[in-house]
Amino acid sequence: MVGSRIDVGLMGATGTVGLRLAEMLEAHPWFRLAEAGASAGSAGRRFGDALADLGVEDTALSDAVLDLELREPDGEWEAGLLLSALPSDAAAPIERGLAVRGHLVVSNASSHRMDPDVPLIIPEINPEHLELLERQRRRWPGAIVTNPNCSVAGLAVALAPLHRAFGIEAATAVTMQALSGAGRSEGLAERVEDNILPYIPGEEEKIGLEAQKILGVLTGEGIRPAAFPVSAQAHRVPVSHGHLLAVSVKLEREATPEEAAAALSGFEPALDVDLPSASHRLIEVLDERDRPQPRLDRDRGAGMTVSVGRVRRCEALDLKFSALVHNLVRGAAGAALLNAELCRVRGLLGVGGVGAGRGAAP
Amino acid sequence: MVGSRIDVGLMGATGTVGLRLAEMLEAHPWFRLAEAGASAGSAGRRFGDALADLGVEDTALSDAVLDLELREPDGEWEAGLLLSALPSDAAAPIERGLAVRGHLVVSNASSHRMDPDVPLIIPEINPEHLELLERQRRRWPGAIVTNPNCSVAGLAVALAPLHRAFGIEAATAVTMQALSGAGRSEGLAERVEDNILPYIPGEEEKIGLEAQKILGVLTGEGIRPAAFPVSAQAHRVPVSHGHLLAVSVKLEREATPEEAAAALSGFEPALDVDLPSASHRLIEVLDERDRPQPRLDRDRGAGMTVSVGRVRRCEALDLKFSALVHNLVRGAAGAALLNAELCRVRGLLGVGGVGAGRGAAP
Amino acid sequence: MVGSRIDVGLMGATGTVGLRLAEMLEAHPWFRLAEAGASAGSAGRRFGDALADLGVEDTALSDAVLDLELREPDGEWEAGLLLSALPSDAAAPIERGLAVRGHLVVSNASSHRMDPDVPLIIPEINPEHLELLERQRRRWPGAIVTNPNCSVAGLAVALAPLHRAFGIEAATAVTMQALSGAGRSEGLAERVEDNILPYIPGEEEKIGLEAQKILGVLTGEGIRPAAFPVSAQAHRVPVSHGHLLAVSVKLEREATPEEAAAALSGFEPALDVDLPSASHRLIEVLDERDRPQPRLDRDRGAGMTVSVGRVRRCEALDLKFSALVHNLVRGAAGAALLNAELCRVRGLLGVGGVGAGRGAAP
Amino acid sequence: MVGSRIDVGLMGATGTVGLRLAEMLEAHPWFRLAEAGASAGSAGRRFGDALADLGVEDTALSDAVLDLELREPDGEWEAGLLLSALPSDAAAPIERGLAVRGHLVVSNASSHRMDPDVPLIIPEINPEHLELLERQRRRWPGAIVTNPNCSVAGLAVALAPLHRAFGIEAATAVTMQALSGAGRSEGLAERVEDNILPYIPGEEEKIGLEAQKILGVLTGEGIRPAAFPVSAQAHRVPVSHGHLLAVSVKLEREATPEEAAAALSGFEPALDVDLPSASHRLIEVLDERDRPQPRLDRDRGAGMTVSVGRVRRCEALDLKFSALVHNLVRGAAGAALLNAELCRVRGLLGVGGVGAGRGAAP
Repeated sequence: MVGSRIDVGLMGATGTVGLRLAEMLEAHPWFRLAEAGASAGSAGRRFGDALADLGVEDTALSDAVLDLELREPDGEWEAGLLLSALPSDAAAPIERGLAVRGHLVVSNASSHRMDPDVPLIIPEINPEHLELLERQRRRWPGAIVTNPNCSVAGLAVALAPLHRAFGIEAATAVTMQALSGAGRSEGLAERVEDNILPYIPGEEEKIGLEAQKILGVLTGEGIRPAAFPVSAQAHRVPVSHGHLLAVSVKLEREATPEEAAAALSGFEPALDVDLPSASHRLIEVLDERDRPQPRLDRDRGAGMTVSVGRVRRCEALDLKFSALVHNLVRGAAGAALLNAELCRVRGLLGVGGVGAGRGAAP
Repeated sequence: MVGSRIDVGLMGATGTVGLRLAEMLEAHPWFRLAEAGASAGSAGRRFGDALADLGVEDTALSDAVLDLELREPDGEWEAGLLLSALPSDAAAPIERGLAVRGHLVVSNASSHRMDPDVPLIIPEINPEHLELLERQRRRWPGAIVTNPNCSVAGLAVALAPLHRAFGIEAATAVTMQALSGAGRSEGLAERVEDNILPYIPGEEEKIGLEAQKILGVLTGEGIRPAAFPVSAQAHRVPVSHGHLLAVSVKLEREATPEEAAAALSGFEPALDVDLPSASHRLIEVLDERDRPQPRLDRDRGAGMTVSVGRVRRCEALDLKFSALVHNLVRGAAGAALLNAELCRVRGLLGVGGVGAGRGAAP
Repeated sequence: MVGSRIDVGLMGATGTVGLRLAEMLEAHPWFRLAEAGASAGSAGRRFGDALADLGVEDTALSDAVLDLELREPDGEWEAGLLLSALPSDAAAPIERGLAVRGHLVVSNASSHRMDPDVPLIIPEINPEHLELLERQRRRWPGAIVTNPNCSVAGLAVALAPLHRAFGIEAATAVTMQALSGAGRSEGLAERVEDNILPYIPGEEEKIGLEAQKILGVLTGEGIRPAAFPVSAQAHRVPVSHGHLLAVSVKLEREATPEEAAAALSGFEPALDVDLPSASHRLIEVLDERDRPQPRLDRDRGAGMTVSVGRVRRCEALDLKFSALVHNLVRGAAGAALLNAELCRVRGLLGVGGVGAGRGAAP
Repeated sequence: MVGSRIDVGLMGATGTVGLRLAEMLEAHPWFRLAEAGASAGSAGRRFGDALADLGVEDTALSDAVLDLELREPDGEWEAGLLLSALPSDAAAPIERGLAVRGHLVVSNASSHRMDPDVPLIIPEINPEHLELLERQRRRWPGAIVTNPNCSVAGLAVALAPLHRAFGIEAATAVTMQALSGAGRSEGLAERVEDNILPYIPGEEEKIGLEAQKILGVLTGEGIRPAAFPVSAQAHRVPVSHGHLLAVSVKLEREATPEEAAAALSGFEPALDVDLPSASHRLIEVLDERDRPQPRLDRDRGAGMTVSVGRVRRCEALDLKFSALVHNLVRGAAGAALLNAELCRVRGLLGVGGVGAGRGAAP
């Protein structure tokens, strides 16, 4: 029954991540996509028509959703819970304004990720960081919750078990990032054909800072980030979906590749409840020596599993391995949805709580 | 000396075609890029900054050009001659308004190509169609001149010699179009990875109608289009630049493949003057049986030469062959520039003529 | 039970098609891969080791199959039924020699396809052509049965319903063929990157002749090929799997696009039994205007369904449409396997029949 | 005059590297391609025909070269100087046998690179290692000289200036290697489409060992390899040509990114003569923050220049940067040719020296 699902609004619905979120909401057991918004140019248009304008023909969206009239993101929303797939430059003031008006904004945008009182969460890794929301209450009645950058989503998941088991002293990560992870970029398609771009604006800084925050410790003063340095080199490659990372780590306590693989595959998520969008396996360690590969492994766990392979000694640091994350799912749309689910089980939706928009219902 | 070059304005400067036009103007012997405009969102920004926002890092533009302040396309322009690389939906009213205000608008947009009194020109093929401008004078003091769709630019050039020599009864063209020929299309890069899209909105209709108009005859009533049917099947393929066409033709008069190849390679352009952007060879007929290929042949004649190969008998029609056109140069930026050059040698720029904007000088 | 499956031998096992065949045999209800052969260089090697030498790491093969010792294709075989994925230059004398020795050779190689007494079969289209084997009996105790070229596999399936319903007068087919359909070709990978090759040796001739033979009529004199001309233009494109065809047809009797689409989707296969490898739907007509696409549609019906889309009027002939075939499955491995299954239900395996090799059992 | 050029033989002429070598020899001022050999299967065939069999249509070879009759690599050769582009498994015994017979074998194969008395040379980096040939004289009258693996060719060139100026303590290198660098690999093209392979057999070990040998010191006991560890992670990516490397280094003496860039761009090659195939600039340091890119930068210096960019601080080691090498030129064919040129200027060709084959002339 529709009536039993919680209405949510979706901002940035016509972008790649927004569209994926809309599709994931179609059959969601808890949430129902009731409102959608896009940039000023599309506001007032039918969702399906705006997608067609952008050359998007095939979607898995129902007619009810395609018939939604797009609103301006900074306008009025009925839903208490808003999912944000806005571009980062637009997101900052809009999301803040909505928090002021009492909405719970679960955002994939980078704008607020590093704010001291905004939790940056991967539910299986650091769900306790959600307590930062108490610090937000001093600022506004609503709340902003964020998920990490698409590369960090894979890196932090792969580092967490090693950090917990052996302590990490330093990490390097060379990323090979898929096309669908790029924001709108004029002529990207032809620039990456038969080519690799060794630079993605702002990406390397995000990878280091966000990984440290996620793996940090919640204290009375806020998050104390993990102290180990993370050095990233980010590349755009001609692959449709799936970010591949070549990682090396220096450990505080010695570990063989076998012990590290065991720590990875045996990792117990730091979450005591089942969330609908969580995969059965957070991490899958592959045995074949030529895996993970983007095309073959990105869809594991419906895109929510991080695949790790080739765990072996590193001649320069201690260990090295490959990790693969589906940038649009575990790295963006699925990550935001998972955070929304976490918010619900933590009781953050509903009357009297944050996120009690005009249309919100428990 | 800069002083001796004619100032031109460029509309749609931040798009792929606009940027290419700006680059071609840097060292142009006749024209100087004096003003640039882009969509409302970018107006007021420095040209170089607006490009950086779109992820465009490397250009061949001078600092003087990068420092231009972008204006709104439908605002005031000093230059009499305006080059338009606007998206087609925006172009129609803007270009019309500028013609009303006396500008000569040389446009790559599709909006006005099929207007009865707007010339659709490839200077080497149908320069006499420029006389249609006399019909425009009844409507406005300025003028609009257009070049064809990027695929048509190759098709019409390849068909013209055969039509002149043997008469064409029917033609089919299957296009394999490069990524840089797409307008802005959400997620195009990842959708075309390991894939082909067998549909490009509006493309097949344009290919037929525009080819017929270009190969048509100027009469007292306007252009009488070529009577033969053109059936197109358009595809987007994972290639950066260069549209490849597989063409079959039915001829009025019999011709062997050798005769057809001779007609193609010996074609005399219908133009009695040298234009700076015209290539030495309009058509190059390649002998190797596996050519033309986009990556190897698209840059012939600095992108202004159409390459033809594999001319052979067609079991269903009469002859078949492959043709290749650089979609951004001969198919867009170079085509518009060539039309602007044609307008100059025809005396259409300057005091008292069309295109006498406030800043125009002979 | 293994005991109840018929032992088959596989020639050319280490190639792309051979490997796929081996994988399809793993869970086959009727056949068991008992012997495998490859070129002289690999003979005597363990199958799995020979694959590793070629850089093939991941397969879906069981250890029992990986442990097979490769034999020389022209050596002794126990199995009566031999599947051939040999390269065509090697196949001709080897397959002939095996037919002389009494084997039933079901071949994907092109060597014998156009022999007057060798059936070229798509079981759903022309199973009656199998009667040609009676003509082979005059030459040798065994038999050779072939399936078509990978592009023809799609083309003939798409043309058959139109030919049956309306009669075809002429057809043109521009193919965009995937990388996995190429035989071994030095440096193919890098030559097709950011590129299209407009020529595939021998391909265009095969497409015409084989389509005409498959759609031909069995007479007392052999096959009378379909009389309509087929003009092909073949291209290699940067796509992993899935050949896309842009087809135009001239019909004997008028038909609207709707009638043609109905004939395609309602086509009744000319086969009265179920074969294990046949897909539930031979042809699927897609409604979306931008389909079929290789990446999205090649795996329909486990790769055995031919997808057709965009059926519409052709301005030059009568109708045009897109067709997609998985080149390795419906176009090669699956096609051969289907033919072997047809041979079994027609009673061609077993004691006293052709194909009674030393190890054959009913 | 042909007569004044030195005759050379080419082994492995039909492979990607061999073909490139043959093309580079066409206009070479010192050497003339007089004999060519390929695997047993092609021996006795005309060179041009053997190439056509492999699907290679277009080459830059003269008719005189295409008309050469291919011989077996381990047969008799007239030329004293033999260039080897053999696959490594075949190369070991053949090259050894030819050295025994007095030939100078300049090899791109990996077989002998790590032999203690075989020089592994980049002429601009370690030309003095050629003295190792004196140790070979104890074994055979001829000689074997090798160039490094295609990735090492870029890595060693980029590390050499930093090692000389600041001392290197450790290095990590993540490679993104182009398709043309792969040996023959069944189905590589389709496996890398929309994909990255995180494993190349044997590659990571070679990268470490070869870099250490090249940057090592010649002693009375042979080469003492550089002592710093090199940790490589090798990937195959969908790019035609050009290996991109993401490198991090730990230095013995502190250096800012600016100092490191200055050391790189100001590096003085350790070679006092001009060789015809050497580029004017061994290393080019690019300023743009998104360079080097394979498609845009691989052809610098006709493929002999190594491009370096993005020199910056590394949070985990000391500095990081990107390096790009044309794998077929600086990484293979050009490297071997350069070594042959070095041998000539060092007086190793000619009467009485090594390499005095039956057809050798000074």
